[in-house]
Amino acid sequence: MTYCLAAAVDAGLVFASDSRTNAGLDQVNTYRKMHVFEWPGERVLVLLSAGNLATTQAVVRALQREAAEGETPSFATVSRMEAAAEHLGAVSVACQRQAVPEGVEQSGLSLEATFILGGQIAGQAPQLFLIYPQGNFITVSDAQPFLQIGEIKYGKPILDRMIRPSLSLESAARCALVSIDSTMRSNVSVGPPVDVLLYRRDSLRVVHRRCFEADDPYFVAIRTAWSDGLARLFDELPPFDWE
Amino acid sequence: MTYCLAAAVDAGLVFASDSRTNAGLDQVNTYRKMHVFEWPGERVLVLLSAGNLATTQAVVRALQREAAEGETPSFATVSRMEAAAEHLGAVSVACQRQAVPEGVEQSGLSLEATFILGGQIAGQAPQLFLIYPQGNFITVSDAQPFLQIGEIKYGKPILDRMIRPSLSLESAARCALVSIDSTMRSNVSVGPPVDVLLYRRDSLRVVHRRCFEADDPYFVAIRTAWSDGLARLFDELPPFDWE
Repeated sequence: MTYCLAAAVDAGLVFASDSRTNAGLDQVNTYRKMHVFEWPGERVLVLLSAGNLATTQAVVRALQREAAEGETPSFATVSRMEAAAEHLGAVSVACQRQAVPEGVEQSGLSLEATFILGGQIAGQAPQLFLIYPQGNFITVSDAQPFLQIGEIKYGKPILDRMIRPSLSLESAARCALVSIDSTMRSNVSVGPPVDVLLYRRDSLRVVHRRCFEADDPYFVAIRTAWSDGLARLFDELPPFDWE
Repeated sequence: MTYCLAAAVDAGLVFASDSRTNAGLDQVNTYRKMHVFEWPGERVLVLLSAGNLATTQAVVRALQREAAEGETPSFATVSRMEAAAEHLGAVSVACQRQAVPEGVEQSGLSLEATFILGGQIAGQAPQLFLIYPQGNFITVSDAQPFLQIGEIKYGKPILDRMIRPSLSLESAARCALVSIDSTMRSNVSVGPPVDVLLYRRDSLRVVHRRCFEADDPYFVAIRTAWSDGLARLFDELPPFDWE
Protein backbone atom coordinates (compact mmCIF):
# COMPACT_ATOMS: atom_id res chain seq x y z
CA MET A 1 0.00 0.00 0.00
CA THR A 2 0.95 3.66 0.17
CA TYR A 3 -0.08 6.84 1.90
CA CYS A 4 0.38 10.26 0.28
CA LEU A 5 -1.28 13.56 1.04
CA ALA A 6 -1.13 17.19 0.05
CA ALA A 7 -2.62 20.33 1.54
CA ALA A 8 -3.35 23.73 0.04
CA VAL A 9 -3.00 26.59 2.53
CA ASP A 10 -2.88 30.33 1.91
CA ALA A 11 0.92 30.27 2.20
CA GLY A 12 1.39 27.54 -0.39
CA LEU A 13 1.29 23.77 -0.81
CA VAL A 14 2.53 20.90 1.34
CA PHE A 15 3.23 17.41 0.01
CA ALA A 16 4.08 14.25 1.97
CA SER A 17 4.47 10.59 1.08
CA ASP A 18 5.60 7.30 2.58
CA SER A 19 7.91 4.87 0.76
CA ARG A 20 6.54 1.36 1.23
CA THR A 21 5.30 -0.75 -1.66
CA ASN A 22 4.13 -4.30 -1.51
CA ALA A 23 2.91 -7.00 -3.85
CA GLY A 24 1.65 -9.36 -1.20
CA LEU A 25 3.07 -9.54 2.30
CA ASP A 26 6.22 -11.36 1.15
CA GLN A 27 7.29 -8.72 -1.35
CA VAL A 28 7.73 -5.48 0.49
CA ASN A 29 9.98 -2.83 -1.01
CA THR A 30 10.98 0.78 -0.60
CA TYR A 31 10.19 3.20 -3.42
CA ARG A 32 9.82 6.92 -3.00
CA LYS A 33 6.53 8.25 -4.34
CA MET A 34 7.28 11.96 -4.66
CA HIS A 35 8.47 13.25 -8.02
CA VAL A 36 9.41 16.88 -8.61
CA PHE A 37 9.35 18.68 -11.97
CA GLU A 38 11.03 22.05 -11.47
CA TRP A 39 11.88 24.88 -13.84
CA PRO A 40 13.08 27.48 -11.31
CA GLY A 41 11.43 30.86 -11.68
CA GLU A 42 8.98 29.47 -14.23
CA ARG A 43 7.07 26.47 -12.87
CA VAL A 44 7.11 23.77 -10.19
CA LEU A 45 4.99 20.59 -10.36
CA VAL A 46 5.01 17.95 -7.63
CA LEU A 47 3.58 14.48 -8.25
CA LEU A 48 2.59 11.89 -5.62
CA SER A 49 1.62 8.39 -6.73
CA ALA A 50 -0.32 5.40 -5.39
CA GLY A 51 -1.41 2.14 -6.97
CA ASN A 52 0.25 -0.32 -9.31
CA LEU A 53 4.01 0.34 -9.18
CA ALA A 54 4.64 -0.59 -12.83
CA THR A 55 1.94 1.89 -13.91
CA THR A 56 3.18 4.73 -11.69
CA GLN A 57 6.80 4.19 -12.78
CA ALA A 58 5.76 4.11 -16.45
CA VAL A 59 3.80 7.35 -15.99
CA VAL A 60 6.70 9.14 -14.29
CA ARG A 61 9.17 7.91 -16.92
CA ALA A 62 6.88 9.13 -19.71
CA LEU A 63 6.42 12.55 -18.10
CA GLN A 64 10.18 12.94 -17.55
CA ARG A 65 11.01 11.84 -21.10
CA GLU A 66 8.45 14.16 -22.71
CA ALA A 67 9.75 17.14 -20.76
CA ALA A 68 13.41 16.29 -21.51
CA GLU A 69 12.79 15.76 -25.23
CA GLY A 70 10.71 18.92 -25.68
CA GLU A 71 7.49 17.13 -26.65
CA THR A 72 4.13 18.89 -26.56
CA PRO A 73 2.10 18.63 -24.42
CA SER A 74 4.37 18.02 -21.44
CA PHE A 75 4.73 19.36 -17.91
CA ALA A 76 7.26 21.81 -19.39
CA THR A 77 4.83 23.25 -21.91
CA VAL A 78 1.25 23.10 -20.53
CA SER A 79 -0.13 26.60 -20.04
CA ARG A 80 -2.20 25.89 -16.90
CA MET A 81 -2.09 23.44 -13.97
CA GLU A 82 -5.50 22.06 -15.04
CA ALA A 83 -3.95 21.15 -18.37
CA ALA A 84 -1.13 19.39 -16.51
CA ALA A 85 -3.72 17.36 -14.56
CA GLU A 86 -5.56 16.50 -17.78
CA HIS A 87 -2.32 15.46 -19.45
CA LEU A 88 -1.32 13.32 -16.47
CA GLY A 89 -4.72 11.62 -16.62
CA ALA A 90 -4.24 10.86 -20.31
CA VAL A 91 -0.71 9.48 -19.78
CA SER A 92 -1.95 7.34 -16.88
CA VAL A 93 -4.79 5.86 -18.93
CA ALA A 94 -2.39 5.21 -21.85
CA CYS A 95 0.09 3.42 -19.55
CA GLN A 96 -2.67 1.25 -18.09
CA ARG A 97 -3.93 0.36 -21.60
CA GLN A 98 -0.41 -0.45 -22.82
CA ALA A 99 -0.03 -2.94 -19.95
CA VAL A 100 -3.03 -4.94 -21.22
CA PRO A 101 -1.89 -6.20 -24.63
CA GLU A 102 -4.62 -7.83 -26.70
CA GLY A 103 -4.49 -11.60 -26.69
CA VAL A 104 -2.50 -11.80 -23.44
CA GLU A 105 -4.28 -13.41 -20.52
CA GLN A 106 -4.90 -11.09 -17.56
CA SER A 107 -3.97 -12.08 -14.03
CA GLY A 108 -6.75 -10.13 -12.35
CA LEU A 109 -4.18 -7.80 -10.79
CA SER A 110 -5.28 -4.16 -10.77
CA LEU A 111 -3.15 -1.89 -12.95
CA GLU A 112 -4.83 1.25 -11.62
CA ALA A 113 -2.92 4.23 -10.29
CA THR A 114 -4.03 7.39 -8.52
CA PHE A 115 -2.05 10.62 -8.36
CA ILE A 116 -1.91 13.91 -6.54
CA LEU A 117 -0.52 16.74 -8.66
CA GLY A 118 0.17 20.20 -7.30
CA GLY A 119 2.26 23.19 -8.13
CA GLN A 120 2.34 26.61 -9.70
CA ILE A 121 2.99 28.14 -13.11
CA ALA A 122 4.33 31.73 -13.18
CA GLY A 123 1.55 34.32 -13.20
CA GLN A 124 -1.11 31.87 -11.95
CA ALA A 125 -2.27 30.67 -8.53
CA PRO A 126 -0.96 27.43 -6.99
CA GLN A 127 -3.25 24.45 -7.68
CA LEU A 128 -3.77 20.97 -6.29
CA PHE A 129 -5.50 18.01 -7.96
CA LEU A 130 -6.28 14.35 -7.33
CA ILE A 131 -6.24 12.35 -10.58
CA TYR A 132 -8.29 9.14 -10.62
CA PRO A 133 -7.28 5.96 -12.51
CA GLN A 134 -9.88 6.88 -15.16
CA GLY A 135 -7.97 10.11 -15.87
CA ASN A 136 -10.56 12.53 -14.48
CA PHE A 137 -9.71 14.68 -11.47
CA ILE A 138 -10.90 16.81 -8.56
CA THR A 139 -9.41 19.76 -6.73
CA VAL A 140 -9.54 21.07 -3.15
CA SER A 141 -11.94 23.58 -1.58
CA ASP A 142 -11.66 25.88 1.43
CA ALA A 143 -13.79 23.40 3.41
CA GLN A 144 -11.66 20.45 2.23
CA PRO A 145 -8.18 21.91 1.68
CA PHE A 146 -6.35 18.57 1.53
CA LEU A 147 -6.22 15.48 -0.68
CA GLN A 148 -5.13 11.93 0.19
CA ILE A 149 -4.38 8.78 -1.81
CA GLY A 150 -3.66 5.19 -0.75
CA GLU A 151 -4.27 4.08 2.85
CA ILE A 152 -6.12 7.27 3.76
CA LYS A 153 -8.37 6.50 6.73
CA TYR A 154 -5.96 6.31 9.69
CA GLY A 155 -4.46 9.73 9.00
CA LYS A 156 -7.66 11.58 8.08
CA PRO A 157 -9.04 12.59 11.52
CA ILE A 158 -6.03 14.76 12.36
CA LEU A 159 -6.26 16.49 8.96
CA ASP A 160 -10.03 16.99 9.38
CA ARG A 161 -9.42 18.65 12.73
CA MET A 162 -6.36 20.74 11.87
CA ILE A 163 -5.90 21.67 8.20
CA ARG A 164 -7.32 25.12 7.51
CA PRO A 165 -6.29 27.57 4.75
CA SER A 166 -4.96 29.97 7.41
CA LEU A 167 -2.48 27.39 8.78
CA SER A 168 1.21 28.19 8.22
CA LEU A 169 3.10 26.10 5.69
CA GLU A 170 5.30 24.65 8.44
CA SER A 171 2.35 23.74 10.69
CA ALA A 172 0.61 22.06 7.76
CA ALA A 173 3.82 20.09 7.10
CA ARG A 174 4.03 18.99 10.75
CA CYS A 175 0.37 17.96 10.55
CA ALA A 176 1.21 15.88 7.47
CA LEU A 177 4.10 14.23 9.34
CA VAL A 178 1.84 13.36 12.28
CA SER A 179 -0.80 12.02 9.88
CA ILE A 180 1.75 9.74 8.18
CA ASP A 181 3.31 8.69 11.50
CA SER A 182 -0.13 7.69 12.84
CA THR A 183 -0.75 5.65 9.69
CA MET A 184 2.63 3.91 9.91
CA ARG A 185 1.96 2.92 13.51
CA SER A 186 -1.47 1.47 12.69
CA ASN A 187 -0.75 -0.23 9.37
CA VAL A 188 2.44 -2.04 8.30
CA SER A 189 1.69 -1.42 4.62
CA VAL A 190 2.80 2.22 5.06
CA GLY A 191 6.45 2.83 5.99
CA PRO A 192 9.48 5.15 6.05
CA PRO A 193 11.31 7.07 4.76
CA VAL A 194 8.82 9.94 4.63
CA ASP A 195 9.23 12.64 1.98
CA VAL A 196 7.99 16.13 2.80
CA LEU A 197 8.04 19.13 0.49
CA LEU A 198 6.88 22.66 1.33
CA TYR A 199 6.13 24.86 -1.68
CA ARG A 200 5.85 28.53 -0.78
CA ARG A 201 3.35 30.45 -2.95
CA ASP A 202 5.01 32.46 -5.75
CA SER A 203 8.50 31.14 -4.97
CA LEU A 204 8.46 29.12 -8.22
CA ARG A 205 11.24 26.90 -6.85
CA VAL A 206 11.58 24.14 -4.26
CA VAL A 207 13.37 25.39 -1.17
CA HIS A 208 12.24 23.05 1.59
CA ARG A 209 12.30 19.34 0.85
CA ARG A 210 13.25 16.67 3.41
CA CYS A 211 13.39 12.90 3.47
CA PHE A 212 12.96 11.54 6.99
CA GLU A 213 14.18 8.07 7.88
CA ALA A 214 12.40 6.52 10.89
CA ASP A 215 15.33 7.45 13.15
CA ASP A 216 15.79 11.01 11.82
CA PRO A 217 16.27 13.25 14.89
CA TYR A 218 13.61 15.78 13.81
CA PHE A 219 11.06 13.09 12.96
CA VAL A 220 11.77 11.38 16.31
CA ALA A 221 11.38 14.74 18.09
CA ILE A 222 8.00 15.37 16.40
CA ARG A 223 6.78 11.85 17.22
CA THR A 224 7.91 12.07 20.84
CA ALA A 225 6.47 15.55 21.39
CA TRP A 226 3.19 14.41 19.83
CA SER A 227 2.86 11.22 21.89
CA ASP A 228 3.84 12.96 25.14
CA GLY A 229 1.50 15.85 24.37
CA LEU A 230 -1.44 13.52 23.69
CA ALA A 231 -0.85 11.72 26.99
CA ARG A 232 -0.85 15.11 28.82
CA LEU A 233 -3.95 16.17 26.89
CA PHE A 234 -5.80 13.03 28.03
CA ASP A 235 -5.00 13.83 31.64
CA GLU A 236 -6.55 17.29 31.15
CA LEU A 237 -9.86 16.11 29.64
CA PRO A 238 -12.93 16.88 31.78
CA PRO A 239 -13.79 14.12 34.31
CA PHE A 240 -17.06 12.11 34.24
CA ASP A 241 -19.67 13.30 36.73
CA TRP A 242 -18.89 10.44 39.16
CA GLU A 243 -15.13 11.06 39.27
CA MET B 1 -21.77 1.17 8.74
CA THR B 2 -20.94 1.06 12.44
CA TYR B 3 -18.04 1.63 14.78
CA CYS B 4 -17.75 -0.24 18.08
CA LEU B 5 -14.73 -0.83 20.29
CA ALA B 6 -13.84 -2.30 23.64
CA ALA B 7 -10.71 -2.14 25.76
CA ALA B 8 -9.41 -4.39 28.52
CA VAL B 9 -7.41 -2.53 31.17
CA ASP B 10 -6.28 -3.70 34.60
CA ALA B 11 -9.20 -1.89 36.22
CA GLY B 12 -11.85 -3.54 34.05
CA LEU B 13 -13.47 -3.28 30.63
CA VAL B 14 -14.67 -0.32 28.55
CA PHE B 15 -17.24 -0.61 25.76
CA ALA B 16 -18.31 2.07 23.27
CA SER B 17 -20.53 2.07 20.18
CA ASP B 18 -22.11 4.46 17.70
CA SER B 19 -25.76 4.21 16.58
CA ARG B 20 -25.86 4.69 12.83
CA THR B 21 -27.04 1.99 10.46
CA ASN B 22 -27.48 2.28 6.75
CA ALA B 23 -28.66 0.18 3.88
CA GLY B 24 -27.46 2.44 1.12
CA LEU B 25 -27.10 6.19 1.50
CA ASP B 26 -30.85 6.78 1.32
CA GLN B 27 -31.75 4.50 4.20
CA VAL B 28 -29.94 5.76 7.26
CA ASN B 29 -31.33 4.84 10.68
CA THR B 30 -30.48 4.96 14.34
CA TYR B 31 -30.11 1.66 16.22
CA ARG B 32 -28.10 1.24 19.36
CA LYS B 33 -25.54 -1.53 19.12
CA MET B 34 -24.75 -2.18 22.77
CA HIS B 35 -26.69 -4.92 24.54
CA VAL B 36 -26.22 -5.73 28.22
CA PHE B 37 -26.94 -9.09 29.88
CA GLU B 38 -26.69 -8.56 33.63
CA TRP B 39 -27.28 -10.85 36.61
CA PRO B 40 -26.06 -8.54 39.40
CA GLY B 41 -23.54 -10.16 41.71
CA GLU B 42 -23.25 -13.18 39.44
CA ARG B 43 -22.35 -12.20 35.88
CA VAL B 44 -22.31 -9.31 33.41
CA LEU B 45 -21.97 -9.76 29.63
CA VAL B 46 -21.84 -6.83 27.20
CA LEU B 47 -22.38 -7.34 23.48
CA LEU B 48 -21.48 -4.92 20.66
CA SER B 49 -22.61 -5.69 17.13
CA ALA B 50 -21.69 -4.75 13.57
CA GLY B 51 -22.83 -6.02 10.20
CA ASN B 52 -26.20 -7.00 8.78
CA LEU B 53 -28.89 -5.47 11.02
CA ALA B 54 -31.38 -8.32 10.56
CA THR B 55 -28.71 -10.82 11.59
CA THR B 56 -27.55 -8.84 14.63
CA GLN B 57 -31.14 -8.25 15.79
CA ALA B 58 -31.99 -11.94 15.34
CA VAL B 59 -28.90 -12.91 17.36
CA VAL B 60 -29.71 -10.52 20.20
CA ARG B 61 -33.37 -11.66 20.27
CA ALA B 62 -32.28 -15.32 20.40
CA LEU B 63 -29.80 -14.67 23.23
CA GLN B 64 -32.42 -12.72 25.23
CA ARG B 65 -35.10 -15.36 24.71
CA GLU B 66 -32.82 -18.26 25.68
CA ALA B 67 -31.79 -16.52 28.89
CA ALA B 68 -35.38 -15.54 29.75
CA GLU B 69 -36.76 -19.03 29.08
CA GLY B 70 -34.00 -20.83 31.00
CA GLU B 71 -32.61 -22.70 28.00
CA THR B 72 -29.18 -24.33 28.11
CA PRO B 73 -26.72 -23.19 26.93
CA SER B 74 -27.44 -19.48 27.30
CA PHE B 75 -25.59 -16.40 28.58
CA ALA B 76 -27.30 -17.13 31.94
CA THR B 77 -25.89 -20.64 32.21
CA VAL B 78 -22.49 -20.83 30.45
CA SER B 79 -19.73 -21.58 32.94
CA ARG B 80 -16.98 -19.50 31.33
CA MET B 81 -16.75 -16.39 29.14
CA GLU B 82 -15.06 -18.47 26.41
CA ALA B 83 -18.15 -20.68 26.35
CA ALA B 84 -20.30 -17.55 25.97
CA ALA B 85 -18.19 -16.50 22.98
CA GLU B 86 -18.49 -19.97 21.46
CA HIS B 87 -22.24 -19.96 22.00
CA LEU B 88 -22.60 -16.50 20.47
CA GLY B 89 -20.64 -17.71 17.44
CA ALA B 90 -22.97 -20.69 17.05
CA VAL B 91 -26.10 -18.52 17.37
CA SER B 92 -24.71 -16.05 14.82
CA VAL B 93 -23.94 -18.79 12.28
CA ALA B 94 -27.42 -20.31 12.85
CA CYS B 95 -29.12 -16.92 12.28
CA GLN B 96 -27.14 -16.35 9.08
CA ARG B 97 -28.07 -19.86 7.82
CA GLN B 98 -31.72 -19.36 8.67
CA ALA B 99 -31.79 -16.19 6.57
CA VAL B 100 -30.79 -18.17 3.48
CA PRO B 101 -33.73 -20.56 2.97
CA GLU B 102 -33.13 -23.21 0.34
CA GLY B 103 -34.82 -22.48 -2.98
CA VAL B 104 -35.01 -18.72 -2.34
CA GLU B 105 -32.95 -16.53 -4.63
CA GLN B 106 -30.17 -14.60 -2.92
CA SER B 107 -29.76 -10.86 -3.49
CA GLY B 108 -25.99 -10.83 -3.05
CA LEU B 109 -26.37 -8.78 0.14
CA SER B 110 -24.00 -9.88 2.91
CA LEU B 111 -25.75 -11.38 5.95
CA GLU B 112 -22.54 -11.43 7.99
CA ALA B 113 -22.27 -9.98 11.47
CA THR B 114 -19.30 -9.41 13.76
CA PHE B 115 -19.51 -9.05 17.54
CA ILE B 116 -17.47 -7.94 20.50
CA LEU B 117 -18.38 -9.78 23.70
CA GLY B 118 -16.91 -8.92 27.08
CA GLY B 119 -17.75 -9.34 30.70
CA GLN B 120 -17.10 -11.32 33.83
CA ILE B 121 -18.53 -14.40 35.56
CA ALA B 122 -18.19 -14.54 39.37
CA GLY B 123 -14.92 -16.15 40.46
CA GLN B 124 -13.25 -15.67 37.06
CA ALA B 125 -11.27 -12.88 35.40
CA PRO B 126 -12.95 -10.38 33.04
CA GLN B 127 -12.62 -11.40 29.39
CA LEU B 128 -13.00 -9.73 26.01
CA PHE B 129 -13.56 -11.41 22.63
CA LEU B 130 -14.15 -10.50 18.98
CA ILE B 131 -16.44 -13.05 17.28
CA TYR B 132 -16.13 -13.34 13.49
CA PRO B 133 -19.07 -14.05 11.15
CA GLN B 134 -17.81 -17.66 10.89
CA GLY B 135 -18.31 -18.09 14.62
CA ASN B 136 -14.66 -18.33 15.63
CA PHE B 137 -13.12 -15.67 17.86
CA ILE B 138 -10.00 -13.92 19.18
CA THR B 139 -9.21 -12.21 22.44
CA VAL B 140 -6.98 -9.28 23.47
CA SER B 141 -3.34 -9.30 24.62
CA ASP B 142 -1.29 -6.91 26.73
CA ALA B 143 0.28 -5.56 23.53
CA GLN B 144 -3.13 -5.21 21.86
CA PRO B 145 -5.57 -4.56 24.72
CA PHE B 146 -8.44 -3.34 22.53
CA LEU B 147 -10.79 -4.73 19.87
CA GLN B 148 -12.71 -2.86 17.15
CA ILE B 149 -15.49 -3.79 14.70
CA GLY B 150 -17.05 -1.91 11.78
CA GLU B 151 -15.41 1.27 10.45
CA ILE B 152 -12.21 0.77 12.47
CA LYS B 153 -9.41 2.64 10.71
CA TYR B 154 -10.10 6.31 11.55
CA GLY B 155 -10.21 5.70 15.30
CA LYS B 156 -7.32 3.24 15.55
CA PRO B 157 -4.28 5.58 15.77
CA ILE B 158 -5.44 7.17 19.04
CA LEU B 159 -6.05 3.72 20.54
CA ASP B 160 -2.66 2.47 19.32
CA ARG B 161 -0.99 5.43 21.00
CA MET B 162 -2.96 5.53 24.25
CA ILE B 163 -4.60 2.26 25.36
CA ARG B 164 -2.35 0.43 27.84
CA PRO B 165 -3.42 -2.06 30.56
CA SER B 166 -2.31 0.46 33.22
CA LEU B 167 -4.73 3.15 31.99
CA SER B 168 -7.61 4.01 34.34
CA LEU B 169 -11.09 2.89 33.36
CA GLU B 170 -12.21 6.50 32.98
CA SER B 171 -9.21 7.48 30.81
CA ALA B 172 -9.82 4.44 28.60
CA ALA B 173 -13.47 5.51 28.27
CA ARG B 174 -12.47 9.06 27.29
CA CYS B 175 -10.04 7.57 24.75
CA ALA B 176 -12.93 5.53 23.33
CA LEU B 177 -15.07 8.68 23.10
CA VAL B 178 -12.32 10.55 21.24
CA SER B 179 -11.82 7.55 18.92
CA ILE B 180 -15.54 7.50 18.05
CA ASP B 181 -15.74 11.28 17.73
CA SER B 182 -12.80 11.25 15.28
CA THR B 183 -14.53 8.56 13.25
CA MET B 184 -17.86 10.43 13.19
CA ARG B 185 -16.10 13.57 11.92
CA SER B 186 -14.33 11.70 9.12
CA ASN B 187 -17.08 9.31 7.99
CA VAL B 188 -20.82 9.97 7.80
CA SER B 189 -21.61 6.25 8.11
CA VAL B 190 -20.83 6.47 11.85
CA GLY B 191 -23.08 8.67 13.99
CA PRO B 192 -24.52 9.54 17.40
CA PRO B 193 -25.79 8.79 19.97
CA VAL B 194 -22.69 7.16 21.44
CA ASP B 195 -23.09 4.46 24.10
CA VAL B 196 -20.33 4.06 26.66
CA LEU B 197 -20.17 1.47 29.43
CA LEU B 198 -17.44 1.12 32.05
CA TYR B 199 -17.29 -2.27 33.76
CA ARG B 200 -15.17 -2.23 36.92
CA ARG B 201 -13.35 -5.55 37.57
CA ASP B 202 -15.11 -7.74 40.17
CA SER B 203 -18.09 -5.38 40.51
CA LEU B 204 -20.35 -7.95 38.74
CA ARG B 205 -22.85 -5.20 37.98
CA VAL B 206 -23.08 -2.24 35.59
CA VAL B 207 -22.62 1.04 37.45
CA HIS B 208 -21.46 3.46 34.77
CA ARG B 209 -23.35 3.50 31.51
CA ARG B 210 -24.03 6.64 29.47
CA CYS B 211 -25.66 7.44 26.15
CA PHE B 212 -24.29 10.66 24.67
CA GLU B 213 -26.27 12.58 22.06
CA ALA B 214 -24.17 14.83 19.82
CA ASP B 215 -25.11 17.89 21.90
CA ASP B 216 -24.62 16.24 25.31
CA PRO B 217 -22.73 18.80 27.48
CA TYR B 218 -20.07 16.29 28.60
CA PHE B 219 -19.50 14.96 25.06
CA VAL B 220 -19.27 18.56 23.78
CA ALA B 221 -16.80 19.39 26.58
CA ILE B 222 -14.60 16.39 25.69
CA ARG B 223 -14.68 17.27 21.98
CA THR B 224 -13.89 20.93 22.60
CA ALA B 225 -11.08 20.21 25.07
CA TRP B 226 -9.63 17.68 22.64
CA SER B 227 -9.73 19.96 19.58
CA ASP B 228 -8.36 22.96 21.50
CA GLY B 229 -5.67 20.80 23.07
CA LEU B 230 -4.57 19.42 19.70
CA ALA B 231 -4.29 22.93 18.28
CA ARG B 232 -2.12 23.96 21.27
CA LEU B 233 -0.06 20.80 20.90
CA PHE B 234 0.64 21.62 17.24
CA ASP B 235 1.94 25.05 18.22
CA GLU B 236 4.36 23.36 20.64
CA LEU B 237 5.85 20.87 18.16
CA PRO B 238 9.56 21.42 17.43
CA PRO B 239 10.25 23.83 14.51
CA PHE B 240 12.01 22.82 11.29
CA ASP B 241 15.70 23.76 11.13
CA TRP B 242 14.97 26.77 8.86
CA GLU B 243 12.28 28.30 11.10
